[in-house]
Order: sequence, then structure tokens, then C-alpha cells
Amino acid sequence: MTTVGFIGLGIMGLPMATNLVTGGFEVIGHNRSPGKVATFAERGGRAANGIADAVRDADVVVTMLPDSPDVEAVMYGSDGVFANAKPGTLVIDMSTIRPDVAAKLAKDGSANGLRVLDAPVSGGEQAAVDGILSVMVGGAPDDVAAARPVLEKLGRTIMHVGPAGSGQTVKAANQLIVAGTIGLVAEALVFLDAHDVDTRSAVEVLAGGLAGNAIFDRKVEGMLARNFAPGFRLALHHKDLGIVSAAARDAGVATPLGSVAAQLVGSMVARGDGGLDHTALLRLVEELSGRSREDDPA
Amino acid sequence: MTTVGFIGLGIMGLPMATNLVTGGFEVIGHNRSPGKVATFAERGGRAANGIADAVRDADVVVTMLPDSPDVEAVMYGSDGVFANAKPGTLVIDMSTIRPDVAAKLAKDGSANGLRVLDAPVSGGEQAAVDGILSVMVGGAPDDVAAARPVLEKLGRTIMHVGPAGSGQTVKAANQLIVAGTIGLVAEALVFLDAHDVDTRSAVEVLAGGLAGNAIFDRKVEGMLARNFAPGFRLALHHKDLGIVSAAARDAGVATPLGSVAAQLVGSMVARGDGGLDHTALLRLVEELSGRSREDDPA
Amino acid sequence: MTTVGFIGLGIMGLPMATNLVTGGFEVIGHNRSPGKVATFAERGGRAANGIADAVRDADVVVTMLPDSPDVEAVMYGSDGVFANAKPGTLVIDMSTIRPDVAAKLAKDGSANGLRVLDAPVSGGEQAAVDGILSVMVGGAPDDVAAARPVLEKLGRTIMHVGPAGSGQTVKAANQLIVAGTIGLVAEALVFLDAHDVDTRSAVEVLAGGLAGNAIFDRKVEGMLARNFAPGFRLALHHKDLGIVSAAARDAGVATPLGSVAAQLVGSMVARGDGGLDHTALLRLVEELSGRSREDDPA
Amino acid sequence: MTTVGFIGLGIMGLPMATNLVTGGFEVIGHNRSPGKVATFAERGGRAANGIADAVRDADVVVTMLPDSPDVEAVMYGSDGVFANAKPGTLVIDMSTIRPDVAAKLAKDGSANGLRVLDAPVSGGEQAAVDGILSVMVGGAPDDVAAARPVLEKLGRTIMHVGPAGSGQTVKAANQLIVAGTIGLVAEALVFLDAHDVDTRSAVEVLAGGLAGNAIFDRKVEGMLARNFAPGFRLALHHKDLGIVSAAARDAGVATPLGSVAAQLVGSMVARGDGGLDHTALLRLVEELSGRSREDDPA
Repeated sequence: MTTVGFIGLGIMGLPMATNLVTGGFEVIGHNRSPGKVATFAERGGRAANGIADAVRDADVVVTMLPDSPDVEAVMYGSDGVFANAKPGTLVIDMSTIRPDVAAKLAKDGSANGLRVLDAPVSGGEQAAVDGILSVMVGGAPDDVAAARPVLEKLGRTIMHVGPAGSGQTVKAANQLIVAGTIGLVAEALVFLDAHDVDTRSAVEVLAGGLAGNAIFDRKVEGMLARNFAPGFRLALHHKDLGIVSAAARDAGVATPLGSVAAQLVGSMVARGDGGLDHTALLRLVEELSGRSREDDPA
Repeated sequence: MTTVGFIGLGIMGLPMATNLVTGGFEVIGHNRSPGKVATFAERGGRAANGIADAVRDADVVVTMLPDSPDVEAVMYGSDGVFANAKPGTLVIDMSTIRPDVAAKLAKDGSANGLRVLDAPVSGGEQAAVDGILSVMVGGAPDDVAAARPVLEKLGRTIMHVGPAGSGQTVKAANQLIVAGTIGLVAEALVFLDAHDVDTRSAVEVLAGGLAGNAIFDRKVEGMLARNFAPGFRLALHHKDLGIVSAAARDAGVATPLGSVAAQLVGSMVARGDGGLDHTALLRLVEELSGRSREDDPA
Repeated sequence: MTTVGFIGLGIMGLPMATNLVTGGFEVIGHNRSPGKVATFAERGGRAANGIADAVRDADVVVTMLPDSPDVEAVMYGSDGVFANAKPGTLVIDMSTIRPDVAAKLAKDGSANGLRVLDAPVSGGEQAAVDGILSVMVGGAPDDVAAARPVLEKLGRTIMHVGPAGSGQTVKAANQLIVAGTIGLVAEALVFLDAHDVDTRSAVEVLAGGLAGNAIFDRKVEGMLARNFAPGFRLALHHKDLGIVSAAARDAGVATPLGSVAAQLVGSMVARGDGGLDHTALLRLVEELSGRSREDDPA
Repeated sequence: MTTVGFIGLGIMGLPMATNLVTGGFEVIGHNRSPGKVATFAERGGRAANGIADAVRDADVVVTMLPDSPDVEAVMYGSDGVFANAKPGTLVIDMSTIRPDVAAKLAKDGSANGLRVLDAPVSGGEQAAVDGILSVMVGGAPDDVAAARPVLEKLGRTIMHVGPAGSGQTVKAANQLIVAGTIGLVAEALVFLDAHDVDTRSAVEVLAGGLAGNAIFDRKVEGMLARNFAPGFRLALHHKDLGIVSAAARDAGVATPLGSVAAQLVGSMVARGDGGLDHTALLRLVEELSGRSREDDPA
């Protein structure tokens, strides 16, 4: 039986690790706050006593952490993954982090005899629970093939998109488009509302044409109902757009629309709305149009 | 039998008028350049001798013209629609024009005893030929109901979105989102290409998630193949974004993303690329990223 | 003695017309609201009984009106300037209007035997009172020379910048730079305030270097004191940026920064702050940064 | 006599160190490439044999280096400033680096018994040669007072703007405004040129009004003459705008105009124009307006 060391049992990590248990893997879980480890143990996982303990006997290590520094902290150091995993271990970082950090992790892991992949996901908490995440994988083809049995318990679409770091690059592109599209839909909704238009009929016809997008399909009902409970928090999207900006800057890529989207998301966070769903950008566009809604919940 | 006066037999108008003939209407067509009228006559239409002649005996008048001034020129004046159509005639303007002009036409038409609707379309030339346009209709409910038998020969989705001018407002919102989405997809493609990513795999995974949109579904193949033959010309999109800007300005609606998209489209036109498909925005983003493609056709 | 017909006795026009009286001209003034005409008469001007009366015996006509349609209304029509001024009369429009409208007025005036100049001003109410406006003049060199005796009573810098419409073009460029510079200074002030910086010392060193500008020299004290009483109202700057946008669009000129400045000013107006001085853009940048000031007056 | 260890004898550092020699200080200079050290020795300086040698006997250490990592490399490590300078030494970093790095250096230096100031400059190479730089100083008041005798040999305006890091914050604000102002002036010049305007007359009247700024005063002649030899290279401005973006992001400050300016500068660098003067932004605006100049001297 394959043994998986799983580090990071948060909102996403816990259901993912649980799906691996259900899928027949032996899973040793670690989390900085021990409460999550106890919950994981109740669900059939084994509780690790620190990172070294979680990875020492693992064939595969999965990490699911908030940001680049968290992943670096877990990988490096005398108690870390690189120092304690067996040679040949497959290390799959599924966090959303900087592509350049992911590439460096792959290089440094390789120097330690490890096979490191970056495999960020999209789909959110519900897809994590349901095991239907989309997974964008960067790394060597053989390593990606070896990781498939694990990844297929977590996601429905497992796409190898290039060498180490590529998974993070594609995730960054995803976050760029999503933020921009939410902004465009918000502008359109305020524009329609400011004229004498039946917004619901308009949305229906817009969604069916060349203006159609997944925000219309999955998110616009919440926007029209003014339900901005996350979902995906603006604070996390802000972090991700920081990754996009840095990666675009490093590569010399112009993002005239992406940089505006980043400004808008950054404003929401600066104003204290980082805990709302990213579709709450609608509120900012309304405010910039002198059309704030008094009936807005919260 | 219902008689339709059809004014504007261009790339869109000619197949639309032809579909009305095929659908069993008596159609009298007029076009400024007479060659198009001859072609229409070969397809079973009747050739009008001027605007007045086209509308004098019509139950329904349809106009399909390039821009607001063209529509105003056809409606007003002693030879125009308003002066020559019978009281009670249904006048359906299917051009893409300014919402405020559409509202004024409805008001002025009403003063002449006419029932005026704005009913711009989306879907492009092929959808016009196939009779499967999406039609966004603004006007009084009774008039919209009366227009349905005609509109249903032209389009698959006929959506009443509000009072006079609303159809144009929704079309404007459509053009805002489409231009912005093309820009976002272009930024993502250049971003992916600038890193070591397999662009086709990346597009596949992006299109299936929250970043999915109709540009990925219908247009990205052309972008990857660098086929920028129109399609929908940048020059027309530029005209439409002028309508969006003016309508947003008049209503005090903020369009931070839309205004950037308008700048990008405007640049393409200023540089002499107005005849390319709107997806050619990709070229501008590449150029701004120092990544112009030497193998680019044309 | 040269007789001047002066149309538009508002905040700017009244002191300008008064300076012409003081400067030795016979001035016949007209204003839509008659109260202003009475005030002008108290100051030594003559009250006209309508536009035709103001211009019939004039050697020079000066107009100082809010916007393009106002100027067109005064020039055209049977009671207007063009129909009633003597052949050869010098018509100097000092309003800030669209360059293309100014060029059309020059052409149409010429067809009526008149010599039309566009001569918008900068400097504001106080400079109008003091007779030290900057005047940007577009038109034929001989006509500009003929206008100098009048213009020199109104301004200190009289600059001939090109053919008809050029004065308005330069004024539009002025308004583009001013709005953008206020925005940049506002961003810098919020940036400094958000860190632990002594803002006054910082402003002093910034103003003396390559970041120096007239906003630092003339306006920043008001911004730091949070005195947003106009001065130059955001609503008027919004009108002027509409002129800039249209003229840039017509000429195919990219204004990536100008269009952002226009969005910001438009937002202020949409939110109901059009009556504040244009430096109140600072408030919007503060709000977008989550740093609204509770001690803000008003 | 006060002894100064001077690290970084580049385009700016060499004349600065030379001015300290001329001003009566004993100066021990170090540079990574030894050729510069030899030149410095010819001008009366002493050549150090490494960083430790340069700072071991110094009362004051001055660093003038390209970017944050360079300064960190010089300060930290067993051969670095912090490990080798005497307790109580005044360490003045005059490089342009991240404010947060500057604050960290002050804290870490203090832990080593050192007094660290950040004191970036503006004015460019000629002002460095002439000893008339503007210096923005962050740090403790007593330390700033102690540094004045040294700084006054280098600059004309020595402004204490706040605690550690503040000097860098003000420098960042400076670079934000300068880039934005160059962009605005470029947009205005293209706008004027696209209409029939005498650009030189227009610039003269614009420079004298509320649109006036130091770019008009010091740089516009070069722009009109199309002389884009640096001056201040776009590549360095790009680095500085990266600092601005990061600092604004960290503090939650909205910079809608600054982020557009950063995109434009980034495009120029991506396109290979990083070696030109920052006023070459004019070329990008021209290109975006379809008005590239064929007579442009490469």
C-alpha cells in the first residue's frame, strides 16, 4: 500500500487528505494547529508528530498550504521535507504559490534525491470535498505519471502543462482571468442597472452569446442576490494576483487589464472587505458609480 | 400576408432579409448602393425605389445599418421612414447604435404614430445566414409581441429586455464584456507563452474552470493559429466601445476595465489594424510584452 | 473706440467684461439670466437686449459660455451672432469647447463673412479678475493680431498656437495633464501617509525635484488642509475630460493615463462630489486605499 | 578627521565619494569591480581590500548600490558591514531600495550596535558630480544630525522625512510621480501633434499654467528633439516602480495611475528599450497612437 504524508489540513487540505484515506491510501497527516490533526484522525487518517514524522516513511508527500513562505518553511530546514523524506519520494505541492518558488523547490528537491511536482488546483472547497478538483501539474512526465493514482482521488481533470513551475503559471493565468471577468461582469451589471433594463433577462441573453463566461454560469446569481459569503475570499485572490503581477513583471509580460483588476481587488482588501467572496467587486464598481445599495446585506 | 420594408442590405442585412423572404414574408428591400438591391431581387425580394417606396405599404419596417447617423438619416427627413410609413407600422431598428439615440427614435416615431423597437443582434454573419441570431429587444411589450413573428425568422433567442433603448444598452454591455474578455485571454496566452508552459493543455484546463468563457470556446483556436481574418472587425468593435463609453459616461457608470479595453481596441485601429478580427488584440499584448511574432501572417 | 459685444457674464465672463470696460472699450453685455446684466451695467457696461442687440454694432464679439451646445446656440439661429454681426466682425469664443466644434464655428462664421477665433483660457476666477489669464488662441494669424488689443486686457500670456480649433486642443491637453497630475499627487500623498513619513517635509523635497509640478506649488496646501472648496469644480473638469476623450478618440491618440484620470473624475461626479474642487480626487484615492478621513470637513 | 568607508563606486558613487575626499574626509573606497577602485585612488581616495577592510576603521559608512539584494549582500555576512564596523558607526545607505528592506537594515544594524540611515537621492549623475543632490533621509533625529556633515558635501537639500525607511518611501513616491508625469506629457504631445497645433507654442503656454511641471522645465526639449540618450534609464525606473508597486501593495494604497505608468515603463523594458532615457515613453505613446516617427534616431 502506498503511504502518503499530507501536510496542511486546512479548509482544502482536510477533505483532500480524507479523500485519499477513502481512496485506499495510508495517510499520515500533519498540521501546525493540532486540532485539525485530531479531526483527521477521527476520519481514518494517522496523526503525525511533526513534519519529519509525516514524511519519513512516505512514498508520496502532499503539501497544501496558504502561500510561498509556508511551503518553503515546510520543505527546508532540519525538520523539513527535504531533510527527512526518503530518496525517490514524490513530493506534490498543491498550494498556490509563486511559479519561480515552485521551480526552485523542484531543483532543490532534486538535489536531495526527491521528485517534486507543483500541482495547484481550482474548483474551491466543494470540489475538494467531492474529489473533482481541476489540477494543473508541472514537472517531469515520469513523475507526473507516477503521481496520477494519488491525484485522481482528488480531482477530475489532471492536466500536465509543462515542466516544474508550469502548474503554478497556469493557476496564475487562471486567477488573472477570473478576477478580470468578475470585474467586467460587475461593470456590465451596474451599466445595465443604471439604464432601464431588466437585468435578469439581459444576463440570460449575455450569458448565451460571445460575452458568456463561467462567472455568468456559476456566480452571477449570487451577485444579483447580493450574497457575498465566500466562496473564494478576496484576500486570497489578492495574494494570487500578487503572484500574477510578480510573474508577469519577471517575464516582461504586459497585463493592462490584469493590473486594473489587481488594483480593484487590492482596494477591496484595503477597505476591509477581504473576507468577502471575490464577486463582491460588484460593490466597488457600484460605489465608483455613485450607486451603492442601501439594502446591501452586511 | 405581412409586408416588410427592409432597409440596409449589407453583410448582415442581406441574409436577414433573405430569411424573411424564405419565411413567407413579402419583403421590399432598399440599399444605398443599388447592386445589393439587385442581388436581393434575385433571391426573391422586391426592389424598392428609395426609402419612401420601401416603407409606404409596409406593415413592418426593419433597418440594419452601420451606425447612429445612418439610422437617423433613414428615419428623419421628407423621404424618410417617419414621414412615409403608415400609422401603426412597426419599425424595428436592428443596427447597433447609441441607446440614447434609440430612445429618441422611439419617442419621435411615436409622435408620428409609429411603434419603434430597438433590436440589435449578436452572433455575426454566419448566424445571420443561419437565422440563429440572438436578439435583444427594447420597447413596449405589445410591440415586442407583435414583432416576434418577424424576429423569429431571424434569430433563435429573442429577449425582451426593457423599454426603448434597452436592447442597445444590453448590446453595449455585450461589447464591453467581449472586448475585455478577449484582452484577458490575450494577456493569459502571452503570460503562458512567456513561461515554459504547454499552451494548448493550459487553455484546455483554463476553459473548463472558473476562467472559462466563450472566447476560449469559439475564438481561441483562431488566436493560437494566428488567424485574424474577420469575424468581427476591430473597427466595428471600436465604434461599439465608443457607444459604451458615451452611455457609461452619461449614466455615471465606472468602467475601469472597459476603458482599458477601449484604449487597446482604439490603439489597434489607430495603428491601421481595424480590418482584423477583434481577437487580434493578442498582437498588441504581444508587442507590449516585447514578444511580437515574426511568423505572424500578414 | 472699439465696441465689444460680450455674451456670457458668468463667474469668468463678468470680470472679463469688466476688465474690457476698464481698459477703455465700449462693451455691450448679454447674459441669459438678466441679473448678471444689471450687475454689469452697474460696473460701467451697457446692457444688451438679446444677442442680436449685443452684436449688431460690435467690432468684436466675445463669448464666454459653459459648453459646446451653449456656444452653438448663441452663434447659430436667426437671433444669433452669425446672422446679426456685421461682416468683418472679429468673433472670439473664449469658452472651453470641443476642438471640432470650434473648427466648424470658424468655417461657418467665415461663410458669413466673420473672422472667428477660439481662445480658451486657464487660470481660474482670480486670474480673470486680475486680468492675468493665459489665453491659447487658434485661428488665422491676421485675426489673432487684430484680437490682441482685446485679449491683452484679459490675460498676461496670449499664445497663438495654430489654426482654428488649436486653442481648444491645447486647452484640452492642459486639462488632461492637470487631472492626471492631481491624481498622481493624491496617490503620492496617500502612499506617504500610509507609511511613517512626515508628509510636509516629503512634499517639500518632492516639489523641488523632477517630481515638481504646479499642483505642488499652488494646490497641495489646500489638499493637506483638506480644503476642497472650489476653485475649479470637478463637474467642469469632467466636462473637459469628455472633450479630451472625444478629441483623442477622433484623432486615434492613445491616452492610457488620461483615461484613468477621466474614470476617477467621473466617479467623483457620479458620487455627488462634482461641486468640490478637482483636488478632492485625494478623497477618492484615500477611499480606494481604505483610508477615508473621518475628520474630513463636509 | 572623520573616516568614511564608501562602498559602491559606480556612476553615482564615484563622484559622490570623490566629493567627500574633496570635502576633507578620509575616504576608503570599495567596489566589486576593482577598476573603479583604482580610478578612485587616482582621485585621492584610499583603496580598500574588501568590504571588511573598508569599514573596519570607519566612523561613517556610505553605500551606493543598484538594488535591495546588493545592499543586503554588503551588509550581512561575515565579511559584511554589520559584522565588521565598529559599534556606534553611522551607516548611510544612499541606494534606492525597498522601504521595508531599509527598515529591516536599520533594525538589524541597531542590533549590531550600528546607527543605520536610509538616504536615497534624486538629481542624477550631474547633480552627483556637482554635489547638489536632493537627499531624503529616514532614521533617528540624532543620527540624521550626525550624518549632516557628510551629506552636505553630497547634496544641496538634505531633508529628514521620518523614521527608518522613510527616505526610501519618499524616493518611491518621487519615482511614481515622475513616471506618471512623463506619461502625461507624452500623451499631451502626441495629442497636440495629431491635431494642427504648433507644439512648441503649446508647450510654452502649458508649462506656465496649472499643467506646468519639471518635465516641461527640464526634459521636454529633449523629447521634442527626440534625444533619448540617458539621463535616467528606463530599466532603472522600472526597478524603482517595482519598489513602488510592492510598497503600495503592502500598505494597501491604491495607485490607479501609478500602475498604468508602471505597465508602460515595463513595456518599454520588455521591448528592449530599457537603455533609453525614461522620456522615451513618448515613443510608446506614439506607437499606441499609430504615429511612430520614421525619422526617429534609433
